[in-house]
This record gives sequence, C-alpha cells and structure tokens, in this order.
Amino acid sequence: MEDTIVALVTPPGISGIAMVRLSGKEAFPIADSCFSSNKKISEAKSHSILVGNIVYKNTIIDNLAALIFKNPHSYTGEDTVEFTCHGGYIASEELIRVLKELGARLAEPGEFTKRSFLNGKMDLTQVEAVADIIHSISVPACQISARQLAGGLSEKINEFRKRLIDILSLLELELDFADEELEFIDKANILHLISESAEFCNNLASSFRSAQILRNGFYVAISGYPNSGKSTLFNTLLKKKRSIVSDIPGTTRDYIEDTLYIGQIPIKLIDTAGLRSSEDCIEIEGIKMAEHILEQADLNLIINDISIDENHSAKLYSEVKSKFPSSQAILVQNKIDKLDFSNFLKKEAVSYISAKQGLGVKDLLSLIEKEACSSVSQSNEFLINERQRDLLERASKHLALAMESAKSDFQNEIVSIDIRAAIKPLGELSGENWSEEVLNNIFSKFCIGK
Amino acid sequence: MEDTIVALVTPPGISGIAMVRLSGKEAFPIADSCFSSNKKISEAKSHSILVGNIVYKNTIIDNLAALIFKNPHSYTGEDTVEFTCHGGYIASEELIRVLKELGARLAEPGEFTKRSFLNGKMDLTQVEAVADIIHSISVPACQISARQLAGGLSEKINEFRKRLIDILSLLELELDFADEELEFIDKANILHLISESAEFCNNLASSFRSAQILRNGFYVAISGYPNSGKSTLFNTLLKKKRSIVSDIPGTTRDYIEDTLYIGQIPIKLIDTAGLRSSEDCIEIEGIKMAEHILEQADLNLIINDISIDENHSAKLYSEVKSKFPSSQAILVQNKIDKLDFSNFLKKEAVSYISAKQGLGVKDLLSLIEKEACSSVSQSNEFLINERQRDLLERASKHLALAMESAKSDFQNEIVSIDIRAAIKPLGELSGENWSEEVLNNIFSKFCIGK
Repeated sequence: MEDTIVALVTPPGISGIAMVRLSGKEAFPIADSCFSSNKKISEAKSHSILVGNIVYKNTIIDNLAALIFKNPHSYTGEDTVEFTCHGGYIASEELIRVLKELGARLAEPGEFTKRSFLNGKMDLTQVEAVADIIHSISVPACQISARQLAGGLSEKINEFRKRLIDILSLLELELDFADEELEFIDKANILHLISESAEFCNNLASSFRSAQILRNGFYVAISGYPNSGKSTLFNTLLKKKRSIVSDIPGTTRDYIEDTLYIGQIPIKLIDTAGLRSSEDCIEIEGIKMAEHILEQADLNLIINDISIDENHSAKLYSEVKSKFPSSQAILVQNKIDKLDFSNFLKKEAVSYISAKQGLGVKDLLSLIEKEACSSVSQSNEFLINERQRDLLERASKHLALAMESAKSDFQNEIVSIDIRAAIKPLGELSGENWSEEVLNNIFSKFCIGK
Repeated sequence: MEDTIVALVTPPGISGIAMVRLSGKEAFPIADSCFSSNKKISEAKSHSILVGNIVYKNTIIDNLAALIFKNPHSYTGEDTVEFTCHGGYIASEELIRVLKELGARLAEPGEFTKRSFLNGKMDLTQVEAVADIIHSISVPACQISARQLAGGLSEKINEFRKRLIDILSLLELELDFADEELEFIDKANILHLISESAEFCNNLASSFRSAQILRNGFYVAISGYPNSGKSTLFNTLLKKKRSIVSDIPGTTRDYIEDTLYIGQIPIKLIDTAGLRSSEDCIEIEGIKMAEHILEQADLNLIINDISIDENHSAKLYSEVKSKFPSSQAILVQNKIDKLDFSNFLKKEAVSYISAKQGLGVKDLLSLIEKEACSSVSQSNEFLINERQRDLLERASKHLALAMESAKSDFQNEIVSIDIRAAIKPLGELSGENWSEEVLNNIFSKFCIGK
C-alpha cells in the first residue's frame, strides 16, 4: 500500500482510447512531473478533468485527458489519476514506461480493487461482483452483479448477522444474571428468528447452481451412439458449420463447445464423441471425455437414430439417467425424415427431429429453454459464488444445530456456541473478518488493471 | 451532424474499464435520462466527473463515472459524455443498447474525429496523426505523430503557404499597376523565397519512404536457393521457432512474416520460398510471391550455402541487385560451421554466419540495423503519408515551374499561375479546402469509436 501503482485498465488493442490508471500516495507528484497543462494536477479539484500533454525528457508522448480523483473519493480510496490516452499499442505503453521511470510500479492483478477493499471502499461481496460483471457472459448475470456491487447482498447478510448478534447479546446477558433467574428473552421469538436466518442462508446457498448457470452458461451435452447425427444437430442448433460432419462413425473425437443464447441465458452446447466400445485409443480417450461431460452437463440430449430403431438407444438413455441423476436428460429421436410418420405414435417428453432438414428443431429449442429457465428461476436476486455458498452452508449448519438445542432444552451456553459459530462465516462473507489467503484467492482471479 | 452518436471507444475484451462515448446535441438529455447521481449531467460543469448508476427501466445497468465535456470544449466540439463502465463484454454493450434506445445511434468508423475536423477542432494533418498514433508499431512513429497532432506539421506548411500567398498578392498588386510600371517587388528575393518553399516541399515529400518504414517497419526479405538455411536464419533472428525447418528443399511455400525490434525500429522479417525453377505448382506460386517480396523489401538478404560453394549464389545475388535496384541487398554466406576457416579470406560487405549455431548473427543484425537506421535518419520531424506526399509533390512541381519562368523572363502572370497552383495543394494538406471524397478516404481507415 506504500507504492504508487500503474496499469493499463482497458484491453490492449487498436481503438480510439486507452486508459492508464495511476494510484497511490505519489500519484499526483508523479503525474505532475510529466503532465503539462494549464493547471497542476495536485492543484486541481477532485473529479475534474485536465487536458494536456505528457512530456518526458523534452519529448511529447501523447496529448490526453487526466481524470483526477482525490483520496478517499476514488476507486482505490487513494489519490488517483486516470489518463485517457490514444488507443493502440504504443502510446499507453510509453505512458506507463514514463510513469514507472518516475517512481510508480506496475500493479499486480486485482491490486486496484484490493486497495479499494483494504481502504474500506468495498466489501468482499462487492469485490466479487466487480469480477462477475467483467467476466459475465449474460445480461442477467451482469445485472445481478451490478445490484450486488451496489451493496444489495451485504445489506441482506448484515441484516441477519446483526439479528444473530442481538440474540447472542441477550443470551449472554441472561447468562450473567443466571443466579438471579431473570429471563430477558422470549424463547419462542428467538427460535423463530434463528429459523428465519437459517432459511435465508439455506435459500441463498442453494441458489448457487442457478448462479453458476447464469455465470457460465447452461451446459447441454449432445451424446449418443456413433453416427446418430450429433454433430449435425450441433451445427443446426448453432446455425453454423462448427463440427465436422461425415458418414464415418467416430468422426468427432475431441469434444467441441460453442455458445448459443436462448433468450438471455447462455447455452453451452457440447458435441461429444459417439458412445460405444471402441478399439481405437484416440476414440477411447474421446469417449472417456464424453462421459465426464455427461456428468457435468445440466442437460443431456441423447440422440437416437430412429431409422435404425425407435428403441435402439433405450438402454443408453436409461443408463445415462441412472448414472447421472443430477443432470436432466431428454431422448431425441433423430432422422425422422427417413421415416413414414403417418401411422407413428409419438411419445410424450421425447423430441422428434431431423437435424439434417431442421424438422422439429424449434420444438427442441423450446424444450431446452424450458429446462434452462427452470434451472435459473430461483436465482433472481444474487449471484452466489462457491466461496459464498460454502460460508452460507456453514452458517446454516450451525443455525440448524442452534435450533435443535434450543428446541430440546434451551441452554443459553449451548445455543450461544452455535450462534457465534454462525455469525463468523457471515462476517467472512462481506470481509469483516478476512485472511490473507482468502484475499489472495479472490484477487488471483482478477486481471491486471482491475 | 444532427444525430447524437455513441460507440465503445476502447477495445472489446476482459479488462477493468471500458469507455463509451456519447456525442451530439442530445448527449446531455439522453445521458440524464438513464444516469442517476447526486447531480444532473446537464447541470454539471464541463470537464467534471460524476459518479453514479445507469438505471434503465428500473434495472441498474452499471455503476460508473460520467466525464462531462461541454461544447466546444470536447474532442468532437459537441456536448460529450464519456462513460467509464466496467470492462468485459456485457456492461458496455448494455449501456450502448440503452443509449441507443434513448435516441443515440451507433457512430460510424472515425465519426467522432470527423466531427472534430468539421467543427474546426483539428486540421487534416492532425486527424491523420490521430490514426498514426493509434496504429503505430514503433515508439518513434508514435512520438512523431504526437508532435504532428500538436500541430507541428500544419504550422510549418502554413508558414510556407502564407509566404506564397504574400508573394502572390505582391505579384498581382504589381500587375494592377502594370501601366504605371511600378515595381513593388524584389525579384531576387522572391526567387529565393520560392526556391526555399520548393526545397521544403521536396524534402518533406521525399521523407515519405522513411516515414513508411517507421510506420510499417523496415522490410527485410530472406531469400536464396532452396535449402540454403533461410528458415533457420529466420527463426534464429526471431529467437523462436516460427518457420518450419526441414532438410527437404521447398519446405517453405507461403511466405512467413514476423516482427523484430532493433533499437526502436520495427524490422519486418520475411522468410520466402527458395528461388529455383520448379515443376511443383504450389512451389511456383511461392516463388512468384517471393519475387514480389524481393521487389517490395527495403533490404534483401541473399542466403548462400557456403558449404556448396562460395559463389554458388553469385549469379542470383547480382540478378537481385540489378532487378530490384531500389532495395538494398546483402550477400549472406551461411553454414560456415561446415567449413575450415583457418585459411579463408573473408570479403568485405559480405556476412558470414552459421544460422544453425548462431555464429556471426550478431554482426548480421548490426548490418541490418545500419541499413535500417540510414533509411529512416532523414525523417525525424514528421510522418508524411501518401496523400501528403502527393500534395507536396504537386506543390513542389508548380514551384519548380514558377522558378523556371521567374528565372527566364519574369512575367507576373505566368509566375502567378504556378504559385497559385502550388498554394492549392498546400491548403488541401491541412484541409482548408477539402472534398467529401478526401474525407471519406481518410476516415475509412479509422476504426469505430475514434
């Protein structure tokens, strides 16, 4: 925190503007020693913009604007100058070189945001929301993260945490007067409050899966026996030739992944190697991978070549369903164009398509959408991540224990222990208590310049 | 110019910050209808920063800073808001969507800068300097462009243009009093001034080649008979395995290009197909390309396999020299590791190396550097482009004609015609007179968001 740090905060590339951020105790003097304008940066107001030239060793580096933020009213909470120089690769690189020569050092990944946290500008759920906004691949994920950045999640958590702290004080106060047999508390009400808190933690923790879907996409694996038309369906759904299609069984070896948006939900479509016993070692590798994908997928489409037999993949379908119970599965009857359908009895919950001719594909997409939407519906409010889920589950577990002891034989000491144990992880959520390890873990996922 | 335009002005990608620029008559009202802060944008001072939320249809889109520039004190000369939202793909996209829904339209490539020119904020040499800064691949090119952006080139040109206009006025004034045989002018002095202007235009025009080198790089083609070790040398110079090397003659078919920096000059190194008569049609195509590259290159390295014979490529070397006289050529004797050097007499201006073992490569690099530096030495002041060169040559041609008529028989009418013809292209340089065609040509090279 003693160093003044600098980094490019926009992506490298050809563009109109690139932004370089300089933050720390020496930000203003360093900036002033290379920035030439009608006013000095250190004399300008916070939240003002000066236009001028970067001049170093008598050479003009660039003509640019300097945005001035005085501590604590900046992103990091420190004195900060944000230079909007010309885009491209050289101008910003040269500016950073000059600022480094004048005493700044290159920022580490996430270091600006880390300082923001350490200076009390953001709590950890907000820090995590920043990362989620930047990496979001869907509009809902971005919007939920923006709400989380505005403090919504911490507010909710702190409300319950405060409630638990109040209960704890009451329990301990009563304990102090135990000899006098005074009763300060309404046990039924406390039980109710603990139960409500437990429910809140539980619901939030269980919204993790749908948060992951909004964050990373709803995974749909296309699998089945070789030559059932998986790659053809993959390409038809994506509306592009992404996967190589041929009549030779085993054409797809590596799995191929691409993204499709249905509504605002990103659907990660995965084309896998055909499932069969094979002698070909490359193919065996592909089949192993395919099985791993089936396990991870949110939804498995089992493609059957109906022109062989309607029940050709029945065994495979039931195997997949029993082996991977946490994933949804849909049986897709493909190649219906090869069949006379006049007397055919369609089964419910089975999709009938011709991937080649595009028949029934719209209905299949609706089915996928239905599955995807039902998976994300409960997570409208916050975008819980793994760290947060683990802490919420810990809190919830202790609250359950507290409730149990409160119900059976209300002993203040015993109930207090679990309530205290539940308060701790809730404090860790927002970062009221934090360890270097937790911070390092969070900020290692950041890019340089954030 | 009636529309309010919006675009992402930073490159798309994962980063801390993305910047969206909104410019035009309705910029402030549009921004105000989705930006929520402690103050309205339209009521804030120019060059001030407001921090707040973008809220649209009751949804927070992002938490961000709005930079406010009031006309004419903005890049475009119009009312402008620059939003620094979170990086990544979604937040800026959503912000642009909202601003478009509120009445802005997406900016065309170069449209911000075009408005800047049309509003008199920049002349054309400055506009071109902006593009050069953004696309520069070398520090000197970027620095020279920054100087040009500061107005250095136009200033110089306008100085000479003004001088020619003064001469023209005198000549015409004298013409008005022709009957009275009054002489206003010092003919010797005028001749001197015209000559100086011509020299200025000439020098500037001829600095085009070295400007191109700073702008695009110094092109060094590696050529020679098959299997002389071209790809090995290419990889050795680049210090990476870029080109596939094998003992089979004709391994390299396409030409391969990569950039190396010697000092601050970008060296574009090109590995070409071996030159020989071939029956293989793919190879023939490669050889044709190689010949085209030899013609374009600033420097041709002709690689000879000295282990075959010192003079094995002598004919090729002299052919290249005579066929492509505008390029420099160096004979490079390769594979010296295969030779006993104790009694070998090295020739001057020939490079002796072992690309495989790295022998002599440092000396070869020095030779390349010498050639590159001598090619750019004269262009220290400005970075002339093709358009500017053509205009300068036109001016210079007419000034030469003016000088000729002035020397032989100083007739004011005749001299005036050519001086007027020289003033016009000088005016076009800075854009005092411009056509839609010229503008379209210049701005077509810009990216969206500039």
